[in-house]
Amino acid sequence: MIRLSLIGIGSGNPEHLTLEAVRVLQEADLVLIPMKDGGKGQLAELRDDVCATHAPHVPIARFDMPVRDPAIADYETRVNAWHDAISDRWQDALSPLGGSGHAVLLVWGDPSLYDSTLRIAARVAERVPLEIEVIPGITSVQALTASFAEPLNTLGGVITILPARRLREGGWPEGADTVVVMLDEATSFDTLPGDTLVWWAGYAGMAQEVRDQGPLAEVLPRIQAARAEARARHGWIMDITMLRRP
Amino acid sequence: MIRLSLIGIGSGNPEHLTLEAVRVLQEADLVLIPMKDGGKGQLAELRDDVCATHAPHVPIARFDMPVRDPAIADYETRVNAWHDAISDRWQDALSPLGGSGHAVLLVWGDPSLYDSTLRIAARVAERVPLEIEVIPGITSVQALTASFAEPLNTLGGVITILPARRLREGGWPEGADTVVVMLDEATSFDTLPGDTLVWWAGYAGMAQEVRDQGPLAEVLPRIQAARAEARARHGWIMDITMLRRP
Repeated sequence: MIRLSLIGIGSGNPEHLTLEAVRVLQEADLVLIPMKDGGKGQLAELRDDVCATHAPHVPIARFDMPVRDPAIADYETRVNAWHDAISDRWQDALSPLGGSGHAVLLVWGDPSLYDSTLRIAARVAERVPLEIEVIPGITSVQALTASFAEPLNTLGGVITILPARRLREGGWPEGADTVVVMLDEATSFDTLPGDTLVWWAGYAGMAQEVRDQGPLAEVLPRIQAARAEARARHGWIMDITMLRRP
Repeated sequence: MIRLSLIGIGSGNPEHLTLEAVRVLQEADLVLIPMKDGGKGQLAELRDDVCATHAPHVPIARFDMPVRDPAIADYETRVNAWHDAISDRWQDALSPLGGSGHAVLLVWGDPSLYDSTLRIAARVAERVPLEIEVIPGITSVQALTASFAEPLNTLGGVITILPARRLREGGWPEGADTVVVMLDEATSFDTLPGDTLVWWAGYAGMAQEVRDQGPLAEVLPRIQAARAEARARHGWIMDITMLRRP
């Protein structure tokens, strides 16, 4: 039996690590680190830094991340096929343990929020006996609200968190007082009324965090410019937006 | 100017503390700890333990928490009056700093999620020059999903988080794939269809955590019994529920 700990490491601030995350990492026999396009990328680098700082004695198994197959048109089918391919790589990466021991994966944010790690772990568990454990971590939602010192909920209010495509498809969610948009590849909130209140951050929680806040009509052009500029500079961007009706 | 750090300490597991939370607490000149009904209560005890473990050198200012006025019928008016009363106590508790220095409040969970600390801080800031800072912490939502190793969202799905009274008033939120119910004083989800999937935890993240999971018709009587038993034993209960349609 392999104990597999999925450790949330927070949204890019090395100090987001919890005491539990540090302890469990230090107890591990093996850390699995995914590599993107053969290289490291900023997210893999953060994982390396976490290991070097807190658990330099724990061996690292690196594996190349497969890419999604653009030939598969349906979203869910494409994602499921991708998760299957990733689970094959995990299985290979776990092989040094020979079926017993304690492996960890360092997960950006929290393994429970818009992250595929738990779904992939479930696939691997069908083939390798696994005891799966989740160590919660600070999410980008929390990094965003902390950065603005703004509560997520209004007093007694309802919060809806959704992927950008669901906001595009369905508009403002019925009954929501606060909306958080994740996995946004453009400013998907750009068709909402101009007086919608916006709190936006790129790289929320990281050293290079950029942010803006105000009524949509006022901040949208600034956010679009900041987003393009930041993406050009860093080669990638991950952003998050909180919205409220005025 | 007083720097006031609102530090999320997680949902009752002392290891939920982040490295940032520990550092900021250790840098403080004063910790404000609210006392309920003159006594400590389990939540104040946890705060004392955090201070004793990580920052025994930092002085503590205790203050008695006022109670809500049941004579005020309207919910928002009652809560606002209560927040006004609490902000008076904070102002007194901050007085040893003489207008400058670094004070911290240790907030259960994350200061941004169904917590009044940011609203009270805003009131105090109208009277005392304050620089307010939020240090995010692990919420009971995260403790719940970690405990079950269950993602919060379905694949590409929409999450709605709401207080129990909004679920009672409005029923299942339109468009939600996953619903999280907070601030529940009874099992407010008891009128939903019997095949609704339920993940429930009392004291999520704490040593005395109790939990159950399954279709509503099956788990509701067990949860109601466990809730009553736990409340009788500990004198209080805080619970959280995640719901999904089958």
